[in-house]
Amino acid sequence: MQCPIARALDRVGEWWSILILRDAFYGATRFDEFERNLGIAPNMLARRLKGLVEAGLFERRRYCERPPRYAYHLTPCGHDFRPVVVAMLAWGNRHFTPEGPSVRLVDRATGLDAEPVVVDRISGRPIDSAHFRYEAGPAATEATRRRIAALEAHMTSERGIP
Amino acid sequence: MQCPIARALDRVGEWWSILILRDAFYGATRFDEFERNLGIAPNMLARRLKGLVEAGLFERRRYCERPPRYAYHLTPCGHDFRPVVVAMLAWGNRHFTPEGPSVRLVDRATGLDAEPVVVDRISGRPIDSAHFRYEAGPAATEATRRRIAALEAHMTSERGIP
Repeated sequence: MQCPIARALDRVGEWWSILILRDAFYGATRFDEFERNLGIAPNMLARRLKGLVEAGLFERRRYCERPPRYAYHLTPCGHDFRPVVVAMLAWGNRHFTPEGPSVRLVDRATGLDAEPVVVDRISGRPIDSAHFRYEAGPAATEATRRRIAALEAHMTSERGIP
Repeated sequence: MQCPIARALDRVGEWWSILILRDAFYGATRFDEFERNLGIAPNMLARRLKGLVEAGLFERRRYCERPPRYAYHLTPCGHDFRPVVVAMLAWGNRHFTPEGPSVRLVDRATGLDAEPVVVDRISGRPIDSAHFRYEAGPAATEATRRRIAALEAHMTSERGIP
């Protein structure tokens, strides 16, 4: 699979993995912290952490020799996943909390609720299909090119531009 | 589970679901388009689409009576998931395309590659832990409050603020 989203999901496409990352962004590092926060079975947690280490999102460091205890620190690649989790938090809060939000993301300085939006760093514009389109990159295979061209053509016709 | 991210993952926490949404953002609507683009088995695709309809992300509309054919249109809730996929695309492109990107997101006006970032709509600042913190919302249970307080305390001590 060439698609960067598919590759991203290869690394984190499991429910628990994303919740583990969420807690890491909160500041959790130690095995027992994740275990307690998530209420996850230790063998399942060990498996998911191992996967995230292998995928390059966490670095494992021993912080106690006897008994051996490990902490899991986000790598730069792991840190970079934060915007995905923030976007998910905003979406979840908007659509699936009929009783009101249970977790807020708050500006430390003003105390106001954050309103996370995804924009282009260069133009500052929201990334929507009116202003941005997908295009085949240099490494695209013929199949990827066809797929992108077909979808872009479909979208253009939907929007009434022949 | 109270967490909005957990609730979000309840709806889309399957590999195929997110790829189906990705193609919907490209403009795909018809069953056969998803099938062809994704190379997914029809029974699996039908199951995932059904799940996404039940979760409120797609609306199913018959576009042909005989034989019956259906199109899947994003609801406002489905549309709102786009920033998550865009953030994933950016992350995947940054870290998992050693051969160069195969899919680019390009400014229609300038032709420049987009650099998707998640910022706060109000302050325009990137959402990072230096400027934003998690806080229990009005609907938080005691367990959610404890979890957020513990993680925030941990993070504060990590950053050297007692």
